Amino acid sequence: MAHINLEKDILGIRSLAMYRPDTGKPLYELSQVLLRDDSPLSQAERELIATYVSFLNECKFCMSSHAAAARYLYKAEAQTVNLTLEDYQDAPISDKLKALLTIAVNVQKDARTVSNENVALARSFGATDRDIHDTVLIAATFCMFNRYVDGLATLTPMDAETYEVMGERMGTIGYIPPKL
Amino acid sequence: MAHINLEKDILGIRSLAMYRPDTGKPLYELSQVLLRDDSPLSQAERELIATYVSFLNECKFCMSSHAAAARYLYKAEAQTVNLTLEDYQDAPISDKLKALLTIAVNVQKDARTVSNENVALARSFGATDRDIHDTVLIAATFCMFNRYVDGLATLTPMDAETYEVMGERMGTIGYIPPKL
Repeated sequence: MAHINLEKDILGIRSLAMYRPDTGKPLYELSQVLLRDDSPLSQAERELIATYVSFLNECKFCMSSHAAAARYLYKAEAQTVNLTLEDYQDAPISDKLKALLTIAVNVQKDARTVSNENVALARSFGATDRDIHDTVLIAATFCMFNRYVDGLATLTPMDAETYEVMGERMGTIGYIPPKL
Repeated sequence: MAHINLEKDILGIRSLAMYRPDTGKPLYELSQVLLRDDSPLSQAERELIATYVSFLNECKFCMSSHAAAARYLYKAEAQTVNLTLEDYQDAPISDKLKALLTIAVNVQKDARTVSNENVALARSFGATDRDIHDTVLIAATFCMFNRYVDGLATLTPMDAETYEVMGERMGTIGYIPPKL
């Protein structure tokens, strides 16, 4: 049961955007710009960072839905997502993305721990200012979404099929506020 | 020194909105809607929640600027801000706001710890769904802003006067993205 009266059977963040559309609008716009618009990071890589931060925050709704979106976007390499969640340092991802995930891990824990050394390591593997900026903002943004969704105890499905359908929608249509 | 190349002498979140205006736009819009538009919580109370969460995250820039905005909005009761930061349970604020701050504290720590008892206590002092929603979203939003500003090591002034000027601007003009 959610902590406030939300539309019946509507899941996670969508129920909150329907409850308060005027805050839902900038939140969906932020997701669309950050995860879908232009970036040196691929859409799959950005969804993977969002998934990893949601995993650290143990937010089942955000982790499962963004993992499904990342799997959809990684296509034949969909197993990259589970391998990253198991051990990102040993996953089949670039050294640049591993170094960026270390920055994301520090942002999730305490953003003041992002060190010059973390940033230098990412740069040594080719990360640019925009890679670093987008990584920090994605990690920070999911520290928000995870807390918003779980702090109000929104409806969280437990079956993989529901998330698979959501992941395909997120990977194709993107982030559009729900119609009222 | 910031971790990426930002406009010289521009402070905190403004330097980031100038670096990437397309993410700055929804972030400023979210702040304006959440902290300035209609809510059962006064603007001063909302700035106080933002300040308290930033204090817990030890984000000097956000804590000092939103504390200054809250002091400006509390007018003759400006000392409420420092008294709340010292011990909110003993501060000259309503029982409803104390119960909402407890919810915000749990959102900051781990949003899954917001309990039915936390929510019931707030409701017993008159909190509505909107009070609870807005509290959780403000707390979650500042867990994002704190991490975004500190994760990129943006410029943080150390003198009280700079924050006082910012607080008055935030309390009057509100949250408008910086002009480029």
